[in-house]
Amino acid sequence: MTTPHVPLRVFGVDPGLTRCGVGVVDVARDRSATLVHVGVIRSDPDAPIESRLATIAAGIREVVALYRPHVVAVERVFAQQNRSTVMGTAQASGIALLVAAENGLSAALHTPTEVKAAITGYGAADKRQVQTMVARILRLDELPTPADAADALALAICHAWRRGATGPGRSAAATPAQRAWADAERASRR
Amino acid sequence: MTTPHVPLRVFGVDPGLTRCGVGVVDVARDRSATLVHVGVIRSDPDAPIESRLATIAAGIREVVALYRPHVVAVERVFAQQNRSTVMGTAQASGIALLVAAENGLSAALHTPTEVKAAITGYGAADKRQVQTMVARILRLDELPTPADAADALALAICHAWRRGATGPGRSAAATPAQRAWADAERASRR
Repeated sequence: MTTPHVPLRVFGVDPGLTRCGVGVVDVARDRSATLVHVGVIRSDPDAPIESRLATIAAGIREVVALYRPHVVAVERVFAQQNRSTVMGTAQASGIALLVAAENGLSAALHTPTEVKAAITGYGAADKRQVQTMVARILRLDELPTPADAADALALAICHAWRRGATGPGRSAAATPAQRAWADAERASRR
Repeated sequence: MTTPHVPLRVFGVDPGLTRCGVGVVDVARDRSATLVHVGVIRSDPDAPIESRLATIAAGIREVVALYRPHVVAVERVFAQQNRSTVMGTAQASGIALLVAAENGLSAALHTPTEVKAAITGYGAADKRQVQTMVARILRLDELPTPADAADALALAICHAWRRGATGPGRSAAATPAQRAWADAERASRR
């Protein structure tokens, strides 16, 4: 007797203070992916930083409450990305990770290169290539916009594909290769 | 008729993932400062990042609930501080700012140089000088340790002194110079 397959529902977050991309996808065992939700949480650049972060937190909590994902995938931010916005991006990523923990969800970080490689087969793909492939994978008639929203969907798909997408109860049924992936991923999150 | 003076209660946070310094001080109009609470929130380096951030959030929320500060002062993190821990530090600072907003408290960021200059008169002071001055200002018999805890107290004192420390209702009674400070500070928080 086999239990019915439940797709893995992944919540991808492309962190940002002014625009935070959010995307939820269901990924089946055969790697096929379905769009559940996509959007962008915006905060007012003229507002104090603490209320901007509260706006981001409220938006992320709303997505979790409405769509009940199994896991949250967040883009890994590097200090080397020496843009003026990098600290705000890091703070927003911390908020996304906190909301995951508060809801008893595990979280995973993926680098932009990992996401591009998983989605397009090419780690240096440009934004347009990522958007095109995300639209194709999710069978959308139009490219997801803005780019932050497409990136959030790409992150979610990337996470499921790298995990093996064997549903929320995947750990028990994981193959040795999947367990190795999971261990490596856990180690990379430290 | 004058209303009785209420000291400004400032919660200083020296953000960090492994050790997050927290300090609460009451600062009177005459700039005298009194220790209310000091401590360090620690998170397990082997735990997943999302649960580490949840530990930091719980610790900060506990301080707010127990000591009811008027304002939260957080050390400003720079990407140029290119240590491997800078992203975790930025995420922890985001958590502190979020907890402030969730409690209806305003927050302010101060740079390490601003804190050292306010406390020791010298922006390049070393950790020992800051600890010594914090102990003297708060009339403590021993130096506050670890350094993260002393830094959190220094941040709190720095914030009150830069604001003018005229109590929680200070805005109404602010002098033009204090208002200029407040405006500059608000601008710097963006």
